[in-house]
Amino acid sequence: MSTAKTAEHDIYARRESEVRSYCRSFPVSFTKAQGSTLTDAEGRDYIDFLSGCSTLNYGHNDPDMKAALIEHISRDGIAHGLDMHTDAKAAFLESFEHHVLRPRGMEHRVMMTGPTGTNAVEAAIKLARKVTGRTNVISFTNGFHGMTLGALALTGNHGKRAGAGGVSLNDVTRMPYEGALGEDVDTLAYIETMLNNPSSGIEPAAAFVVELVQGEGGLNAASAEWVQGLAQIAKDHGALLIVDDIQAGMGRTGSFFSFDHMGVEPDMVTLAKSLSGFGLPFACVLIRPEHDIWKPAEHNGTFRGNTHAFVTAKVALEKFWADDRLRNQIALKSQVLEERLHIIAERIGGARIKGRGMMRGVDVGSGELAGRICAECFDKGLIIETSGADDEVVKVLAPLTTPMEQFKEGLDILDRAVEALVPQPMMAAE
Amino acid sequence: MSTAKTAEHDIYARRESEVRSYCRSFPVSFTKAQGSTLTDAEGRDYIDFLSGCSTLNYGHNDPDMKAALIEHISRDGIAHGLDMHTDAKAAFLESFEHHVLRPRGMEHRVMMTGPTGTNAVEAAIKLARKVTGRTNVISFTNGFHGMTLGALALTGNHGKRAGAGGVSLNDVTRMPYEGALGEDVDTLAYIETMLNNPSSGIEPAAAFVVELVQGEGGLNAASAEWVQGLAQIAKDHGALLIVDDIQAGMGRTGSFFSFDHMGVEPDMVTLAKSLSGFGLPFACVLIRPEHDIWKPAEHNGTFRGNTHAFVTAKVALEKFWADDRLRNQIALKSQVLEERLHIIAERIGGARIKGRGMMRGVDVGSGELAGRICAECFDKGLIIETSGADDEVVKVLAPLTTPMEQFKEGLDILDRAVEALVPQPMMAAE
Amino acid sequence: MSTAKTAEHDIYARRESEVRSYCRSFPVSFTKAQGSTLTDAEGRDYIDFLSGCSTLNYGHNDPDMKAALIEHISRDGIAHGLDMHTDAKAAFLESFEHHVLRPRGMEHRVMMTGPTGTNAVEAAIKLARKVTGRTNVISFTNGFHGMTLGALALTGNHGKRAGAGGVSLNDVTRMPYEGALGEDVDTLAYIETMLNNPSSGIEPAAAFVVELVQGEGGLNAASAEWVQGLAQIAKDHGALLIVDDIQAGMGRTGSFFSFDHMGVEPDMVTLAKSLSGFGLPFACVLIRPEHDIWKPAEHNGTFRGNTHAFVTAKVALEKFWADDRLRNQIALKSQVLEERLHIIAERIGGARIKGRGMMRGVDVGSGELAGRICAECFDKGLIIETSGADDEVVKVLAPLTTPMEQFKEGLDILDRAVEALVPQPMMAAE
Amino acid sequence: MSTAKTAEHDIYARRESEVRSYCRSFPVSFTKAQGSTLTDAEGRDYIDFLSGCSTLNYGHNDPDMKAALIEHISRDGIAHGLDMHTDAKAAFLESFEHHVLRPRGMEHRVMMTGPTGTNAVEAAIKLARKVTGRTNVISFTNGFHGMTLGALALTGNHGKRAGAGGVSLNDVTRMPYEGALGEDVDTLAYIETMLNNPSSGIEPAAAFVVELVQGEGGLNAASAEWVQGLAQIAKDHGALLIVDDIQAGMGRTGSFFSFDHMGVEPDMVTLAKSLSGFGLPFACVLIRPEHDIWKPAEHNGTFRGNTHAFVTAKVALEKFWADDRLRNQIALKSQVLEERLHIIAERIGGARIKGRGMMRGVDVGSGELAGRICAECFDKGLIIETSGADDEVVKVLAPLTTPMEQFKEGLDILDRAVEALVPQPMMAAE
Repeated sequence: MSTAKTAEHDIYARRESEVRSYCRSFPVSFTKAQGSTLTDAEGRDYIDFLSGCSTLNYGHNDPDMKAALIEHISRDGIAHGLDMHTDAKAAFLESFEHHVLRPRGMEHRVMMTGPTGTNAVEAAIKLARKVTGRTNVISFTNGFHGMTLGALALTGNHGKRAGAGGVSLNDVTRMPYEGALGEDVDTLAYIETMLNNPSSGIEPAAAFVVELVQGEGGLNAASAEWVQGLAQIAKDHGALLIVDDIQAGMGRTGSFFSFDHMGVEPDMVTLAKSLSGFGLPFACVLIRPEHDIWKPAEHNGTFRGNTHAFVTAKVALEKFWADDRLRNQIALKSQVLEERLHIIAERIGGARIKGRGMMRGVDVGSGELAGRICAECFDKGLIIETSGADDEVVKVLAPLTTPMEQFKEGLDILDRAVEALVPQPMMAAE
Repeated sequence: MSTAKTAEHDIYARRESEVRSYCRSFPVSFTKAQGSTLTDAEGRDYIDFLSGCSTLNYGHNDPDMKAALIEHISRDGIAHGLDMHTDAKAAFLESFEHHVLRPRGMEHRVMMTGPTGTNAVEAAIKLARKVTGRTNVISFTNGFHGMTLGALALTGNHGKRAGAGGVSLNDVTRMPYEGALGEDVDTLAYIETMLNNPSSGIEPAAAFVVELVQGEGGLNAASAEWVQGLAQIAKDHGALLIVDDIQAGMGRTGSFFSFDHMGVEPDMVTLAKSLSGFGLPFACVLIRPEHDIWKPAEHNGTFRGNTHAFVTAKVALEKFWADDRLRNQIALKSQVLEERLHIIAERIGGARIKGRGMMRGVDVGSGELAGRICAECFDKGLIIETSGADDEVVKVLAPLTTPMEQFKEGLDILDRAVEALVPQPMMAAE
Repeated sequence: MSTAKTAEHDIYARRESEVRSYCRSFPVSFTKAQGSTLTDAEGRDYIDFLSGCSTLNYGHNDPDMKAALIEHISRDGIAHGLDMHTDAKAAFLESFEHHVLRPRGMEHRVMMTGPTGTNAVEAAIKLARKVTGRTNVISFTNGFHGMTLGALALTGNHGKRAGAGGVSLNDVTRMPYEGALGEDVDTLAYIETMLNNPSSGIEPAAAFVVELVQGEGGLNAASAEWVQGLAQIAKDHGALLIVDDIQAGMGRTGSFFSFDHMGVEPDMVTLAKSLSGFGLPFACVLIRPEHDIWKPAEHNGTFRGNTHAFVTAKVALEKFWADDRLRNQIALKSQVLEERLHIIAERIGGARIKGRGMMRGVDVGSGELAGRICAECFDKGLIIETSGADDEVVKVLAPLTTPMEQFKEGLDILDRAVEALVPQPMMAAE
Repeated sequence: MSTAKTAEHDIYARRESEVRSYCRSFPVSFTKAQGSTLTDAEGRDYIDFLSGCSTLNYGHNDPDMKAALIEHISRDGIAHGLDMHTDAKAAFLESFEHHVLRPRGMEHRVMMTGPTGTNAVEAAIKLARKVTGRTNVISFTNGFHGMTLGALALTGNHGKRAGAGGVSLNDVTRMPYEGALGEDVDTLAYIETMLNNPSSGIEPAAAFVVELVQGEGGLNAASAEWVQGLAQIAKDHGALLIVDDIQAGMGRTGSFFSFDHMGVEPDMVTLAKSLSGFGLPFACVLIRPEHDIWKPAEHNGTFRGNTHAFVTAKVALEKFWADDRLRNQIALKSQVLEERLHIIAERIGGARIKGRGMMRGVDVGSGELAGRICAECFDKGLIIETSGADDEVVKVLAPLTTPMEQFKEGLDILDRAVEALVPQPMMAAE
């Protein structure tokens, strides 16, 4: 890991904590960004297949959001208003109701939490525990839900959990995600058997917290059948179903929610990342009305309801979710992506395609190879990262709005990087 | 609690969670803000003595920050860049080093956490546990540190803790803050005696987490002597000293940090609220270099390092902390505030002035009276809130930059509100 | 549940806690016992197929132990000596070494814990956590390990866990026992897959705590293959293997330990129940020498090392484990038991034989039926109880020394009780 | 620490766990005991001022208990009967009701727990949590309540807590015992202030668990005033008062219970140690009837209700508690003890007398000196041990029945040991 500047003069080496990470993979200084292109201080352009880990589903600095935000700031619109009523908040809520909730028949209420995904997850599990009077929460292998203690307890990743510094991460029971025990093992049967056994030692659950595509956990994608089965088990056992749609929501899998067309309606949904549309910190929990038993301020926070984010989020909803155009574009690009990833996967012995919609990648078998592929891509002007328990998946998280030409260009770079590093298909060796 | 609109047509009643709170005290819709003035949809102006709970120490929409932010957005500056290097981040870090750290001889590193105070607190205690290999953290009566499980365990407030839904908030030992046992009781002696007793049953502590003025806990202000004593006890027992300066920092008590001139250098400092200067979500932890043992990404998060906040924060540092002008203004206004609060307190039997610098208030003896005073103020065009275990403190958190004229105008409203509700001094009844 | 006496005059109703249980199933007053026969105050004899839940493997008041104990008491032998050296303790240790440890090549040390099984389990997991520096302990579905908080966390039974009064039972991960997911599901594959996945969210384990036959959990008996596989997984993952042999040990399954001839050597073994041979409170942990890192008194207790129990335990070891006679008797009786239970099971649709050696029973499909069978047996002079998550197993725990004639007599009573309650086989109904 | 035998041939070194402790202080082998005299294998007699840590309040092998026990065993009385009704159990309960409960107007029910003190404590806190629906339990500095996880969380001693192997000992709040903050500090004021503050961060308590004389914690004795104040605070805050009378009960402080004549009636009382009278494992919890909400078997255990202990306990109650003779003897000996300890304390600079009744000792200022005094005593034929956070108290726990002559003889040995080791008073040095 080298940086462009020498350590002596480097403000980062001198003053930023060792916890910094992405800057180690992409050791340049970025100065501007537009659409799917990032530009560094030396004027070099990079295609962005990382999208702020799915925070920039509509690309960088979307001109309409940008204009609305500048207009808001220019006219001294509220920048920070705690959770007071503002015109911007009302407009966002009405737009969210109109374009997202009402078309789906969802009665959910919106809880503005602190503007981080982990805060939304913490709020959701606190509420589920209050609603059910139970403390145990079920989460899944390879799940990723945040870094604060309550959410970290739900997170599977060993390295992240080690960050807790030895504190026990309690009141969570881990269950196997679809496919976690091998492709042919029915993990729902396991879950159901364990929960049905009164002597299993597993406490009754307040909630199941699940991602329908595991963004950090290796792009494992649950089937509709599995999700429905899980929802039924949760219901049968009096547990709430909480879908963590922080990374997979806002269009990433093809529709606004990852659970659209899956035949389930979650009791709660956590949203963050691309919710503002512009990359601004913003998070919320959607709550079925009967579960909205919060007392005022029982979960609070200084930045809940980021007004700048309301402004951009409203534009995003109206620009992208008022009709089917974006959905159709995603569908088309998803198909291209799948086809190209198949070709890429075939270059690598044993590689597997993972994910769903525009949240896909290739499990190349080792974190070491995946890391080298990403580094090679960066050299060639493509920003792309890994995912998975061993960082073994090269993950494509391009903005959903990437022009087709540029999208293919990025995939070409990826393809060539794989070709360069894995010169001949191992599978077809003989 | 009534709102201006009827529930039928009210988007908030229809779609926002019951957890919303400030909008219940101030049931109007705000549409713009400038300096220390908020304006509602009907064009009515309000003087802001709440400042987003000390998030707007430099007032609303400071013109210089505003200009810099619009310029940044206009030129497609990075809006979201995870924790990659950007020109905005480097500029912020250099400015922070130059204006804040270096003048104080502080070697601390800056850890960009998720942009909420609670996330900074969680990061700090995780790191303290890693550094010391101990799990117990000491926090204080009436302390407030956030709503996520790790930080909530440190928070004293019963109602907030109840939000955890029955989960035990563990690995924290509560100690009495200065004055918590009565004005003449030496709480340091208690703390020291308990920690020195090997059979006290109190586990060795990873850290002491303390606010030097307790913003939510009733504006209890620690003396320099107490803080120095506490720092010494922490040191003697191998515990790190973490100052939570989220609410009291960024000038609120008269200098940039609440611990300036207190004779201590914390091992870690948590900052948020006014750090961006503009009300944008932003938080960080300052860490002495020898404790910065994080592995890359061991504590991560989507919005760590909010680039828009870097832009405004840099302006704030250069505009307000390059010289002594703001400090002098705060000193002057603090004096005015103290004098006026004394007069106000004298109107109320048994009332006491609390706090330090521009973080002061009056303990009026009951939450009921404090609530009525704030409601009366709102009717008269002043936004002001309560604090304390029983909401018994009327808290003045005016922007530090409030023009003196407007500042006095706000204090006049408060004075008249008290006068109206407490017609004659109870103490001087006979 | 009625008792023989009216509540008015009943010292139990008046003064004993509602927690009492067995006296509700067997509402008579017992006054003496000899061998496998209990006698009540009215002179009625009962065959004992409960044996104090396997505490009386050698029957009641064995004449040789009785004589030794009376001799010890008569000569003012030590009754209570904390953990000081006594002639009785040395004699027990030498006998245990000679008859139990040395023949098996076991190097284990003996830790005298408080004289309850749960105390031995607590000591074992404390030590495993000290040895490994890990806190997570793996236990199994339907496992039963005791009622104190550490052991209760390992116990699966829902009703018992509810006794904790809402305290979270932490630092334990539950795994499926052999057969817990259905007869054809390989639970070792599940365990291994979960432990091998670094993002499974399961913390590295200090120990696996397992019963080879689950006495309270329904007489589930693990196969040698499963036990060996489990031992290998534990070893591969740096976890200690702790066999809880409190109920299954001391000959119950055919040999002294339940793991004899299973091809494994546990890192620790917990023993209690029949260890004294006479029904006296006594428990210990066997510890491989390299794990015996206790500091003196780090786990202590008033009654550790019950001297009266040393006296009887020594006689039991020399009388029953110096040669193969008892083992051969158990083998013979086990065969009879199995044959008779098959006949009994055939009377009941869907019934299954459970267990191993002299620790066997019939799963009759429901706790209701099992309870009625036991009640009917008691009416006919046989004391027998149920086991299992739903109390659905009629469990035969006769003293290993029961004369064959009396053993068959007891089985006849059981057979007739089933016959009376289940007049015709349901399976062969059409 | 040397032992009489060489390690090579020593069964203890070869086969007993390193956790053994008292045998290290008294490295001889005891073979018989009668009254207050222990005899070793070489025929040497020792006066016992340890009494099995107050387990042998009536001395060793009391002839009446011995006779009753031999008679019981001889006639094949029940040795082990789980919690079934037996003549021995009924007789004990009736005797306990007659001689202990009824004279005090106590309506309490008796819960037979596993026969260790720690098990009784675990049962009591489980029940208090069930009764109140709260999880937090308040215990005190220097409190000692047992080694299983629930009881260990209540125990203050650092070394014992370390035995938990890094598991957090949760759901307990530590409060200062009377005198823990210095003789002139009112700890009740502290407790009350903390509990009255809704933002103290201390969860509402299920129970206060307290010893009236802290046996292991240094013989700190609470005053009646403090105990009454504590009981009132518990009541005011809806917490149950649980007196742990395991070491201080059964006459040790002068009356049967340590709380007799203190003006309080605990909600629960835990008893063990001298309850059997003979040193046999036996423990119980006394529960006010309205709190006895256990379901049958919700807390169970193999050895609850040790029948041999019922036999001896009944004799003990009838022999020693049917009239005032023992009480009068204790009073007399307590006076002698106090006088002699004063003389001894005066030999040592800064020494203080601790404790109450026949549970007294001298704080000699350091564990090192206390240890040397005890070792010197042992050399001279007196068995005596230390207590306290630093083992700084030489503790006299003679059998209550020790003949006056022998009692004085023991005190003479102690006096001479102190004289030998501390030749001249340090206080009067100049």
